[in-house]
Amino acid sequence: MTKKLLGSKVVNEIIINSKKECSELKEQGINPQIAVVRVGNNASDISYEKSIMNFMEKADISVKSIVLDENIKEDDFIKSLKEVNEDESINAILVFRPLPAQLDEDKIKYIISPSKDIDCFSPVNMAKLFISDTSGFYPCTPLGVMEMLDYYRINPEGKEVVIVGRSLVVGKPLSMMLLDRHATLTICHSRTKNLKEVCKKADILIVAVGRANMVDKEYIKKDAVVIDVGINFYDGKLTGDVDYESASEVAGMITPVPGGVGSVTTACLVKNVLKACKQKNG
Amino acid sequence: MTKKLLGSKVVNEIIINSKKECSELKEQGINPQIAVVRVGNNASDISYEKSIMNFMEKADISVKSIVLDENIKEDDFIKSLKEVNEDESINAILVFRPLPAQLDEDKIKYIISPSKDIDCFSPVNMAKLFISDTSGFYPCTPLGVMEMLDYYRINPEGKEVVIVGRSLVVGKPLSMMLLDRHATLTICHSRTKNLKEVCKKADILIVAVGRANMVDKEYIKKDAVVIDVGINFYDGKLTGDVDYESASEVAGMITPVPGGVGSVTTACLVKNVLKACKQKNG
Repeated sequence: MTKKLLGSKVVNEIIINSKKECSELKEQGINPQIAVVRVGNNASDISYEKSIMNFMEKADISVKSIVLDENIKEDDFIKSLKEVNEDESINAILVFRPLPAQLDEDKIKYIISPSKDIDCFSPVNMAKLFISDTSGFYPCTPLGVMEMLDYYRINPEGKEVVIVGRSLVVGKPLSMMLLDRHATLTICHSRTKNLKEVCKKADILIVAVGRANMVDKEYIKKDAVVIDVGINFYDGKLTGDVDYESASEVAGMITPVPGGVGSVTTACLVKNVLKACKQKNG
Repeated sequence: MTKKLLGSKVVNEIIINSKKECSELKEQGINPQIAVVRVGNNASDISYEKSIMNFMEKADISVKSIVLDENIKEDDFIKSLKEVNEDESINAILVFRPLPAQLDEDKIKYIISPSKDIDCFSPVNMAKLFISDTSGFYPCTPLGVMEMLDYYRINPEGKEVVIVGRSLVVGKPLSMMLLDRHATLTICHSRTKNLKEVCKKADILIVAVGRANMVDKEYIKKDAVVIDVGINFYDGKLTGDVDYESASEVAGMITPVPGGVGSVTTACLVKNVLKACKQKNG
């Protein structure tokens, strides 16, 4: 029978460990604090902000919410961001993206302080990820996948790992992280021919394409590990990129949606805040 | 019969096109010039410098050779590098690496001007490579592989491409460049199990591991394209990572060593100098 890999167990462990670390930092007189920078009142930003606040609170990390006018000019936005960069009481910064059209992300990403950029917005952190410099901050969704694998003691070393999807948010960074862990790594995408055959070789199959139920049992090798990174609204409910019912007939282990990788993502932000804090004070 | 993919033809085309571009730039009053920064008199640096000068001369690009004392202090090195960064007459900079031990490459790579860094030393250019921002400079060896494929009209789109080797100089950047060209990409390395089987799936097999004759016909699918990036001295002569005789029994096309990818690499530097020049003046 297929084993269901639950995100909640991973999250619990991250929170327990983070709370302990946070308490140790406070004993040293260090107060971890993240600034979340939101432009306007976009509903999904507000929802994500609430979720971040909830997680940070569980780990005893302070949150400073900075809300800017939705029509803010680029110069004023940059001025605010620089103030947060320089504010010694803040260890970590998250800017909600996408930013409104008048703000050029390709310019702003070079301004956020790389040492506080826990969401891997800065090209410096992208470069560090690429060159395996672990002092950088890795994006939270692929970090969530790695936490999931580690929690369930699934070691990618020497395994055939296939990632479907090559986005900058998941596929590409995850491929670098899995290479660092010595996986034999294949990246597939919309132009891949014989996708089923390629996926079927995988010991670990990771799907991050954003198409509901795209992958079923015909893509999966017997007893393979299946990690579903998709979050889609389909037929009125939340569903992943993997058809869970069908996949669980052949997969050895599989993450559900909801309740799988998605829930681990925000917990990884907590880990990154503490990492920023320790690196600054280390 | 297997087709031998010669680097010389690719180089000729690059030089002819570059010379034409350079002449057009000069007509606009722009004089392309590269600064090569060498610390000490390491024999392999001097040999590479001569090769660069030779190629640049063929394309009518000026070269400024900056030779620094082998015992130069880091502060003085940085001062010299900043002068070159700021020198308006210089469009492109190449620093010979590895630098001597007293110079911290991990610090210096953040100082070289990304817009002149034609050898992809700066993390900004590494990041641009990773995020598919084509305004950056890609490293010359993987560029040479791409030039080779393009010249011989080998389109990686949708093909199964297997790269053996995950170095920062070849394997990793090449994987990103091939993903941008829509290959289904697999990266293998020393921890890969069943390397032969994985390689044998490749429509295009690229070997960059630095082990003489490691790959023979048993790793190669009938009629596959084999690109040998290795340069090894073995048994008194220059040899690649692929056993040419054995491989040519099954491969459809194959690059020799010497005379293959290696010869294209320095020509790609010429292209990068002109790119830097055009971007500055465009």
